Amino acid sequence: MSDKKISPAVIHRLPRYYRYLSELLDEGVERISSGELSERMHVTASQIRQDLNNFGGFGQQGYGYQVASLKEEIGRILGIDRGHKVIIVGAGNLGQALANYPGFEKRGYVITGIFDSDREKCGKTAGELTVRHTDELESFLKNTPADIAALTLPRVAARDVAESLCRNGVRGFWNFTSAELIRSEVLQKAGAVVENVHLAESLMRLSYALTECDM
Amino acid sequence: MSDKKISPAVIHRLPRYYRYLSELLDEGVERISSGELSERMHVTASQIRQDLNNFGGFGQQGYGYQVASLKEEIGRILGIDRGHKVIIVGAGNLGQALANYPGFEKRGYVITGIFDSDREKCGKTAGELTVRHTDELESFLKNTPADIAALTLPRVAARDVAESLCRNGVRGFWNFTSAELIRSEVLQKAGAVVENVHLAESLMRLSYALTECDM
Repeated sequence: MSDKKISPAVIHRLPRYYRYLSELLDEGVERISSGELSERMHVTASQIRQDLNNFGGFGQQGYGYQVASLKEEIGRILGIDRGHKVIIVGAGNLGQALANYPGFEKRGYVITGIFDSDREKCGKTAGELTVRHTDELESFLKNTPADIAALTLPRVAARDVAESLCRNGVRGFWNFTSAELIRSEVLQKAGAVVENVHLAESLMRLSYALTECDM
Repeated sequence: MSDKKISPAVIHRLPRYYRYLSELLDEGVERISSGELSERMHVTASQIRQDLNNFGGFGQQGYGYQVASLKEEIGRILGIDRGHKVIIVGAGNLGQALANYPGFEKRGYVITGIFDSDREKCGKTAGELTVRHTDELESFLKNTPADIAALTLPRVAARDVAESLCRNGVRGFWNFTSAELIRSEVLQKAGAVVENVHLAESLMRLSYALTECDM
């Protein structure tokens, strides 16, 4: 299982490779050359060869890459084969969207619970789950440990909730709020990891690119 | 209105500055030093000075930055003051989440319409709007031109819809699907811009970071 150290830049590109390889597999493609993959992904063939060389043995001159085994290997490196357990905190529209998102299961994630502090929302259906009250989080996690929490709750509550989850064993935070969780000492001490999805910043980048076009 | 060319790396960081400056303004802070901003943003003070020097005249030695005017200037550069008109295509949970997202208005965006191809969804409420059928898109855009389309529809439909929108004047695409719109010749020829929000890739990065921690 030992891997030589892969550079962060390559790691950052791996999810995209994984997505393309999944698509190819869905289309029944078993082998692909770096040239074909290059055309599909709009990346140079030499970059692809360099990136995928990190995993050794999957590409052969004049033969190409074996889609299934390369996908599996990248999935292993990304930790996708580990059946990560995910809870969602915040059952508003965004939380509901995640609960209904088929991409989770497809990639081996299991959503085990969805929670909200609003009693009006509790008892309602979200995907295949029933919304529970956040008061139940602690006891829930004792019985059903989770690796990842998707935070789709209001920003003001995010940090407290994240720290409480962290004390109850959650180590990965998929943060949709603009709270800077990375600053939390509780999370830092526990070695928790945070992946932010800053929608507002993404929209502003789009807005800037549009403005540039007009000039 | 002429701006000297600002590097893409700085541009990429501007939305984050904008967010912090907005927060400071909400808290009633009128001036801030690069040191204080540095502590808040977890960026070095020298990086902040370097970045914000691009806009000249807002920071003064021993006095700090004027929050309001710096925010306004960055907003202008990001094109936030332009009142971009946004339509949402796809009224599922994610589309609903965007329609209800207060961050739009706060940043001067106006959501003018939300559309879905599912007649079951049409007529229902989303934020302050009523969901319309996608058949109405063309005539709608003739009367109410939009700059930006948020694509929260299934991936298979994304490219056709984007090209049709592009032919009807939409130039910015906030793409929540995994479709590679950037490859579309129609969009390329029109000089359209695409900002992708790849949730699956974000989740995989989190999953990888978690796996790293375990090793």
